[in-house]
Amino acid sequence: MKGKMKAVVKQTSAPGAELVMVDIPSPGPGEVLVNVHSASICGTDHHIYIWNEWAQGRIKPPKIMGHEFYGEVVELGDGTESIKVGDLVSAETHVVCGRCPLCLTGKGHVCKNTTILGVDINGAFAEYVVIPEANAWINGKNIPPELASIQEPLGNAVHTVLSGDIAGRTVAVTGCGPIGLMAIAVAKAVGAAAVYATEINGYRAELAMKMGAERVFNPAREDAVKGILEATGGYGVDVVAEMSGNPKAISQAFDMVKQGGRISLLGLPAKPVELDISEKLIFKGVTVKGITGRLMYDTWFQVKGLLESGRMDLQPVITHRLPLEDFKKGMELMDSGDCGKVILYP
Amino acid sequence: MKGKMKAVVKQTSAPGAELVMVDIPSPGPGEVLVNVHSASICGTDHHIYIWNEWAQGRIKPPKIMGHEFYGEVVELGDGTESIKVGDLVSAETHVVCGRCPLCLTGKGHVCKNTTILGVDINGAFAEYVVIPEANAWINGKNIPPELASIQEPLGNAVHTVLSGDIAGRTVAVTGCGPIGLMAIAVAKAVGAAAVYATEINGYRAELAMKMGAERVFNPAREDAVKGILEATGGYGVDVVAEMSGNPKAISQAFDMVKQGGRISLLGLPAKPVELDISEKLIFKGVTVKGITGRLMYDTWFQVKGLLESGRMDLQPVITHRLPLEDFKKGMELMDSGDCGKVILYP
Amino acid sequence: MKGKMKAVVKQTSAPGAELVMVDIPSPGPGEVLVNVHSASICGTDHHIYIWNEWAQGRIKPPKIMGHEFYGEVVELGDGTESIKVGDLVSAETHVVCGRCPLCLTGKGHVCKNTTILGVDINGAFAEYVVIPEANAWINGKNIPPELASIQEPLGNAVHTVLSGDIAGRTVAVTGCGPIGLMAIAVAKAVGAAAVYATEINGYRAELAMKMGAERVFNPAREDAVKGILEATGGYGVDVVAEMSGNPKAISQAFDMVKQGGRISLLGLPAKPVELDISEKLIFKGVTVKGITGRLMYDTWFQVKGLLESGRMDLQPVITHRLPLEDFKKGMELMDSGDCGKVILYP
Amino acid sequence: MKGKMKAVVKQTSAPGAELVMVDIPSPGPGEVLVNVHSASICGTDHHIYIWNEWAQGRIKPPKIMGHEFYGEVVELGDGTESIKVGDLVSAETHVVCGRCPLCLTGKGHVCKNTTILGVDINGAFAEYVVIPEANAWINGKNIPPELASIQEPLGNAVHTVLSGDIAGRTVAVTGCGPIGLMAIAVAKAVGAAAVYATEINGYRAELAMKMGAERVFNPAREDAVKGILEATGGYGVDVVAEMSGNPKAISQAFDMVKQGGRISLLGLPAKPVELDISEKLIFKGVTVKGITGRLMYDTWFQVKGLLESGRMDLQPVITHRLPLEDFKKGMELMDSGDCGKVILYP
Repeated sequence: MKGKMKAVVKQTSAPGAELVMVDIPSPGPGEVLVNVHSASICGTDHHIYIWNEWAQGRIKPPKIMGHEFYGEVVELGDGTESIKVGDLVSAETHVVCGRCPLCLTGKGHVCKNTTILGVDINGAFAEYVVIPEANAWINGKNIPPELASIQEPLGNAVHTVLSGDIAGRTVAVTGCGPIGLMAIAVAKAVGAAAVYATEINGYRAELAMKMGAERVFNPAREDAVKGILEATGGYGVDVVAEMSGNPKAISQAFDMVKQGGRISLLGLPAKPVELDISEKLIFKGVTVKGITGRLMYDTWFQVKGLLESGRMDLQPVITHRLPLEDFKKGMELMDSGDCGKVILYP
Repeated sequence: MKGKMKAVVKQTSAPGAELVMVDIPSPGPGEVLVNVHSASICGTDHHIYIWNEWAQGRIKPPKIMGHEFYGEVVELGDGTESIKVGDLVSAETHVVCGRCPLCLTGKGHVCKNTTILGVDINGAFAEYVVIPEANAWINGKNIPPELASIQEPLGNAVHTVLSGDIAGRTVAVTGCGPIGLMAIAVAKAVGAAAVYATEINGYRAELAMKMGAERVFNPAREDAVKGILEATGGYGVDVVAEMSGNPKAISQAFDMVKQGGRISLLGLPAKPVELDISEKLIFKGVTVKGITGRLMYDTWFQVKGLLESGRMDLQPVITHRLPLEDFKKGMELMDSGDCGKVILYP
Repeated sequence: MKGKMKAVVKQTSAPGAELVMVDIPSPGPGEVLVNVHSASICGTDHHIYIWNEWAQGRIKPPKIMGHEFYGEVVELGDGTESIKVGDLVSAETHVVCGRCPLCLTGKGHVCKNTTILGVDINGAFAEYVVIPEANAWINGKNIPPELASIQEPLGNAVHTVLSGDIAGRTVAVTGCGPIGLMAIAVAKAVGAAAVYATEINGYRAELAMKMGAERVFNPAREDAVKGILEATGGYGVDVVAEMSGNPKAISQAFDMVKQGGRISLLGLPAKPVELDISEKLIFKGVTVKGITGRLMYDTWFQVKGLLESGRMDLQPVITHRLPLEDFKKGMELMDSGDCGKVILYP
Repeated sequence: MKGKMKAVVKQTSAPGAELVMVDIPSPGPGEVLVNVHSASICGTDHHIYIWNEWAQGRIKPPKIMGHEFYGEVVELGDGTESIKVGDLVSAETHVVCGRCPLCLTGKGHVCKNTTILGVDINGAFAEYVVIPEANAWINGKNIPPELASIQEPLGNAVHTVLSGDIAGRTVAVTGCGPIGLMAIAVAKAVGAAAVYATEINGYRAELAMKMGAERVFNPAREDAVKGILEATGGYGVDVVAEMSGNPKAISQAFDMVKQGGRISLLGLPAKPVELDISEKLIFKGVTVKGITGRLMYDTWFQVKGLLESGRMDLQPVITHRLPLEDFKKGMELMDSGDCGKVILYP
């Protein structure tokens, strides 16, 4: 397919990004071209936009931003076999080597040769995007398009919550950004006894209640650890899903968790964190799981199954819908924290 | 406590049982006396009542029948420590030794020295019952009394469904007696993508739909295996919970299950069953779990958590409520199959 | 590479096979050509040779037989990337689709689109064999060539033994053909407390002792179940690895196993087997695992690691070494049972 | 039993301890009196002896020290059932409540109501010790007395090493005190591909090689992380058993471990530790397990099974044998680090 398309491009090593016209890309061997119907803004996109320390070390402009999306396959590269024009797809955004010991043993999500869509290679805040056939996830007929575009971060939430025993257990979700909010809904959908959440932003705290939280604590104004211990008979919760990356929240996760419990860490702290390992990790017999990406592709099948279960209401998490042209407004919403998931329509 | 009480007693080695007046029992060391508020009829009680082959080999009359119940602690034996008069309890009905290698490694539910309440020792279809302190499960304040009395069979359902991965997976429940019906509700509450059921009794098939089944197949009139394969893209379900004990259903479980899937067997076939082990178990890479009792006491905590989750509606399974005097009517309902759980009130 | 090569070919739908000269095959896209240094005879090869019922239904002659081998890569097809000429390889013999839900979730070993080397496509009892790049396992420098060629069946043994908890547990291996013999060595190498074996052939019983068995029972002459119960304080073993496919051995596996134990089934019975599911599987709370193939490719890494551990002596299992021309003698050894693994050198 | 006995007593809140004559204790209900045949010195005993910060906060003198031992039951308290005079026992040293949610779900080792033998209650550096019947571990006939007395710390090593997948995997043991040394032997006995160790004390480094380490790095003189990465093809080890409690070693554990690997932490750092959670725990997808005590009583059965396996040589770890009177010499050996396990004979 020849021609030009709209795309949000990080053009220089500085804050910001621009909507510009660029060539429609061509799929190489084993790749497909997708017409993007919807895309959503991730915290990572926001980091790239504001040009934080991590972005400065990782991004090589110019790059088309964005990696969460939903669209229709419109062109096939050579040698593609499992996909056809017209398929409605989303994408696993970790492009992995498939041949290293990690990829060969079900740990492709931590492949050392990973490149990431919209980070290391051109992304999906555009009318078209090229992805490897192996990364295309063909959606079922019944999934609403809006939900389809947020399956990738939903996969993060599912990976976090289901990284251990959960049915009938008590849970704390620390940090109610979009993935934290989804983690609440996931935990409830898989039978958590109760989900307690922590969040300082009032807008998001309200969303957390809509997602099914039993109670939301504001750590800026109250003692969340004390509150959660009281709510659990002094034992603490069986599982903490740490979604904030905030050092204090990480430390408190170890106070909130029950002896023998699990802490799954997804939120990324900007700096090293100090932990009382003896008292809070070893003597408590806690298990800590570092969570990144999604199991390829077991998490995607779990996401599909949970969406089909009819027990998970994600609509409240989608708070804003904007044309692609208004992406800067989306970024401002991310600045404020007064949003859940922001969807862009190219 | 001195005096007489009403009790349903299996008096002789023959079909039937009688409501008679007997002495109120006294709690020995480490035991407690419970005033029974409600009890429910189990398939095992029905087997004892009709005096089937298994019952003839196991039961030594006279015995007070019944083991699923809810009541109030009214008297403590010597040396009890963790319980007090007034506690509202149900009971784990497996009385185990606590010292054998199985008990010492978290497998008390298959302790070889087990005696069972209402089977090997006097049970709970009576105004009072004595149980070991170790077997008393103190209920939370918020559980409705009716549900409290069916926690023991609910524990069977939870043990079966949660004996492996389940969130986001497809499930088949073969056989919709009370525990099968509860298994449907449990599977949905813990995030099963869809639950397919099989049942020949129309009354129970209707209940299965109320519990959350996607579709109920009648194996007497349609090809359930074919239906389930079609509903799952030809792969079969990830998990089968076999609750019928019917040899044909057991065999079909292996046809319905996906490659690499799990079959959890709870229903007890009366005779040995012939299985095509090579094609259906080995080449398919299936895992089979024999399920008996409840994990002591992890399953009880899971039951508690799932009841607290608010996502599991068990009301439809309780179909009949009778005074203890009408226990024979309850047994007739069990004969017909036109019932879910039957509750008796002493 | 042009020219002719020696190959053992199943030429017609009848017992037997012949050593004939055929064209050296050419690797297609994504395939490699391997010069076979050594190959070993599997029970499956023997089934094809004697033309048993299974073989009659599965094999479409003419086919070059054989799938266990070790050799050197001599030619690369188009598009191969992870392998180079001179690499010393063995092969995973299950050629799978890589795109179905099973392949995408770590269960490629039960992919429904599997073809098997030497069964459905031409195999390795020849001077050269073509295999997909994805199936080539590059060997480390330190592995002895003879052991390299038996890694595939060793993988079956590892997959069986490690399909659950094993360190410090008691084990029974029923059936001491080559894979059963290797299972004994594997179980000892991973810390089994004691391995009891059953075998009727005296030659193999002696090998079982050399592999590390505590004691070998001859079920034709003694009560193996009784012996194993006595040796384990009446409880039975924690794990049974059933390697014979014999219906009586399968039934006895359920008598030998401890309450709450595991039975991993690898041996393929020729016909359906009758099992006392209620007493021996459900009431005992047993887990049964159907084992086929090897986890792709986690089992291969475990095999590599166990060979490197230096704690597993497999030399006794290799009992015969023959030139390829003498393959019929190898098949006769398999008839008699008076052998462990038979290696063929092209 | 009346009379006096020798005992090593922590008499005051100050460094040191004294051998004095005290009354032989009497077993209360559910307790037994054991004649101590041998005992061994734990790092915890040394902490109490030198009166470090932890000891100052925990110990209430006077207390008889010591908790690792082996001896003969000589008197039974009321109500004991599973044990008899003449039984040769060791002891699980965590005395737990048995009724809390942790004890009731297989997590007694982190029971919040735990008291510890020789720490919170009188211990075993004496001619006699009283222990609860529930904590007595009856030894098999074939275990050498010397090994019997070190089963408790061996249980720590087994708990650490077996807290995840290990057969065929590469392992690093950081810190070769007695439990670290035992961890090496355990890892090799359960099929670790290779065990790399780190240790700065030359005496212990030599012992580490005797226990089966592939190579021992001295972090004071060489780059252990670099060495381990080189030895593992740049990937790092699958499993780290952190046995030192040294903050730098803990930090390096995260550098040594492979993507998706496991770190089991047993060594207790004296102060909070700073960790680069984003890069080394989350992005690497690492699992961290806090290890304390022994699973009650699964770890004890694993210890028994591994000792019976005949594949674990622990003799090198027992380096010194002293009469109880020379306990101060034992403490000096612990000061120097020039010892493995020190056995005391009352």
